[in-house]
Amino acid sequence: MEKIVSLCKRRGFIFQSSEIYGGLNGLWDYGPLGVELKRNLKNYWWRAMVHERDDVVGMDGSILTNRAVWKASGHEDTFSDPMVDCRVCKARLRADQVIEKKGVRQCPNCGSKDLTDSRPFNLMFKTYVGATEDESSLTYLRPETAQSIFTQFKNILEVSRKKLPFGIAQIGKAFRNEINPRNFTFRSREFEQMELEYFCRAEEGMKWLDYWLEERLKFYQNIGISREKLHAREVPENERAFYSKGTHDIEYDFPFGRQELEGVAYRTDYDLSQHQKASGKSLEYFDEETKQKFIPHVVEPSAGVDRTVLALICSAYAEDQAPDEKGKMETRVVLRFHPRMAPIKCAVFPLLRNKEPLVAKAKQIVDLLRSHMSVFYDESGAIGRRYRRQDEIGTPFCVTVDFETFGEKQAQLRDTVTLRERDSMKQERVKISDLLELLLVRIA
Amino acid sequence: MEKIVSLCKRRGFIFQSSEIYGGLNGLWDYGPLGVELKRNLKNYWWRAMVHERDDVVGMDGSILTNRAVWKASGHEDTFSDPMVDCRVCKARLRADQVIEKKGVRQCPNCGSKDLTDSRPFNLMFKTYVGATEDESSLTYLRPETAQSIFTQFKNILEVSRKKLPFGIAQIGKAFRNEINPRNFTFRSREFEQMELEYFCRAEEGMKWLDYWLEERLKFYQNIGISREKLHAREVPENERAFYSKGTHDIEYDFPFGRQELEGVAYRTDYDLSQHQKASGKSLEYFDEETKQKFIPHVVEPSAGVDRTVLALICSAYAEDQAPDEKGKMETRVVLRFHPRMAPIKCAVFPLLRNKEPLVAKAKQIVDLLRSHMSVFYDESGAIGRRYRRQDEIGTPFCVTVDFETFGEKQAQLRDTVTLRERDSMKQERVKISDLLELLLVRIA
Repeated sequence: MEKIVSLCKRRGFIFQSSEIYGGLNGLWDYGPLGVELKRNLKNYWWRAMVHERDDVVGMDGSILTNRAVWKASGHEDTFSDPMVDCRVCKARLRADQVIEKKGVRQCPNCGSKDLTDSRPFNLMFKTYVGATEDESSLTYLRPETAQSIFTQFKNILEVSRKKLPFGIAQIGKAFRNEINPRNFTFRSREFEQMELEYFCRAEEGMKWLDYWLEERLKFYQNIGISREKLHAREVPENERAFYSKGTHDIEYDFPFGRQELEGVAYRTDYDLSQHQKASGKSLEYFDEETKQKFIPHVVEPSAGVDRTVLALICSAYAEDQAPDEKGKMETRVVLRFHPRMAPIKCAVFPLLRNKEPLVAKAKQIVDLLRSHMSVFYDESGAIGRRYRRQDEIGTPFCVTVDFETFGEKQAQLRDTVTLRERDSMKQERVKISDLLELLLVRIA
Repeated sequence: MEKIVSLCKRRGFIFQSSEIYGGLNGLWDYGPLGVELKRNLKNYWWRAMVHERDDVVGMDGSILTNRAVWKASGHEDTFSDPMVDCRVCKARLRADQVIEKKGVRQCPNCGSKDLTDSRPFNLMFKTYVGATEDESSLTYLRPETAQSIFTQFKNILEVSRKKLPFGIAQIGKAFRNEINPRNFTFRSREFEQMELEYFCRAEEGMKWLDYWLEERLKFYQNIGISREKLHAREVPENERAFYSKGTHDIEYDFPFGRQELEGVAYRTDYDLSQHQKASGKSLEYFDEETKQKFIPHVVEPSAGVDRTVLALICSAYAEDQAPDEKGKMETRVVLRFHPRMAPIKCAVFPLLRNKEPLVAKAKQIVDLLRSHMSVFYDESGAIGRRYRRQDEIGTPFCVTVDFETFGEKQAQLRDTVTLRERDSMKQERVKISDLLELLLVRIA
């Protein structure tokens, strides 16, 4: 894992937030490559979950919402972890971190047995909206995006004219004041979620739960995470939320252990019922055919953006053997991202930086590609070193403009370039006029 | 403006946040069409400002950051509005809202003269990170995205190997606890910014200020906002931040008045110098040619996503005359979005919903288009009504599958459809096999 964390920093995927001030625990910034990777993931999720489907529309709700939302959802009362203080070293501990041997509790930090009783610590960040700081202006940063989908259910049902079953999708930030953030970006205090709430009839809830589990497993394979590293775990009843009739976790084999990427939960009609009760507004669906009115049930595939980005990086990381400048084999670090996810799709090189026609042609090719994908121009160092730099950040394709591009030796090679593929390191000769189309197909 | 606000709600662009609980002042949710419009704007900004340029890279920083950032930037001490309380009606007022006649101050709400002195009200939302609530864990929701670009300047400089001039771009949420949010989504408490910090040599600062003002004016025209409604205002010295050597506001003629969309500010080396001083970390740039070390200057084009979305809607809104089902002229509401910005790019209709071959062919066309753009299938109601519904949400193209698609009367029309353009309402006959390519060009 250290190699991956170090690569993330060295090549500009992920930095500590406010690093020059010593950072802030559980908060991270994405650098130039990290932000592209994250954008590719979010855009592909949106395409697969919204645009490519007839039965899903999107929304984007605010992070700050009326506190009544969090009372009705149950978060204000119950969204907490049990916490224990050590009276000696003052460490704040999650109760499950306390060492317990033969009924005696011990601080894992200093070994003291002088610990407070366990008490609930609410994980929502508080703030005050408006000019006064009192109970009337208190609210929270949302701990999940799902609730704004429920509160806007009726508005969206009306404007979208959808019939059951249909879904509402959202990507956005959420915040949890974790007592102990850990595992790099895996458990952080600020994160992005990609959530779908899929509304259906009660009698079809279990069917849609199975459907969405399968769909979501396919999604991870479509972004390049191999099925062998993915695990669907049926969450037993005693671990599920009391209102859930079934939940599956999709887990991934991280270097630090098997951990959850996504939960696919059948939440029944719990959330809509709670909001209907608390707001006094009807959140019922009217079935035009049967003339029935009822509160729909919902199945929720809820994925973590940052966790998935981390899984993509861990999954892509590889070391293999490749020839150096002089043909001697050396260890190559390569990120084998699916081309769809790669932060840079194509790097373009002139063979030599001091030959003006090569440079000019390479820049023309950059211009040809760049409104369609993220491209990178590099002219410095030997070609082999330039390939290695791209391998290390997972660029699937490199294009080199050389003297043959000008047909110096073989006229039929005029206006062609070398296209080199990252994983196989194979090179092919491609017409410049075919390049855009060819790349668009491979990164689609 | 009321017509626009009402259309936004009725058709699902923008809703009040937590509306079923009475909302929360200054906070808004984007519905199915609003989220698509906002995505189009942000994606186009990213493409124009990052992907299509050699000299800009992106990043994505956290909303919660170390409090030291806001001390160094000056926000903790000075990011405030003067506030006055009315002792009679208890209204909280921005000082500039107080009526003042012949030196006597009066409450604009109840007319009372019993007002408190003006005092500064800091606009940053506070929260506590970690398990304790005290000074040591206090921080703020970021009031602008810019500062994380400055604090990551050195990291990004190192990983990106850029030379001056170069820029770092970011899109993300920011929060300001406005005393009086107003003008629909224009002045809200939670909003998104699209910011570029463009680093350069001191001697080139004024040149890049002029350059970016022109670039940004072009940007607004490229998303369909007419130059006549845009105004570049040079901010006089007494209105500028004390460290700025020049600022231009880009303003738009909203129905509620001329208001700022974007500020293009030459911030000198103020921010980096402040962070270097406060953090003790060098934020200098080393010039390999001249062997000089110095803190770069910066020009910042800072745009508001939500304001620009609102300007796009206001700018697109029109009423004209169009024939109804029976050829009688009626008033048509149309959103004339640039095709690049339109939430739905293409609607697909079978002429009749009860003719299976028409429906099947229309659905095939939807499948052909949907991984490339947002499409909408509609089979209900007369074709004229379906066009009107799309006009009202600004869909630039509608495709109709009719009997000619099957070559019923004219064999040469087999496998063609009617393509209807929103503004001209002109219809042309297009081969299905040409449709994707043709639309991609028009929405690019």
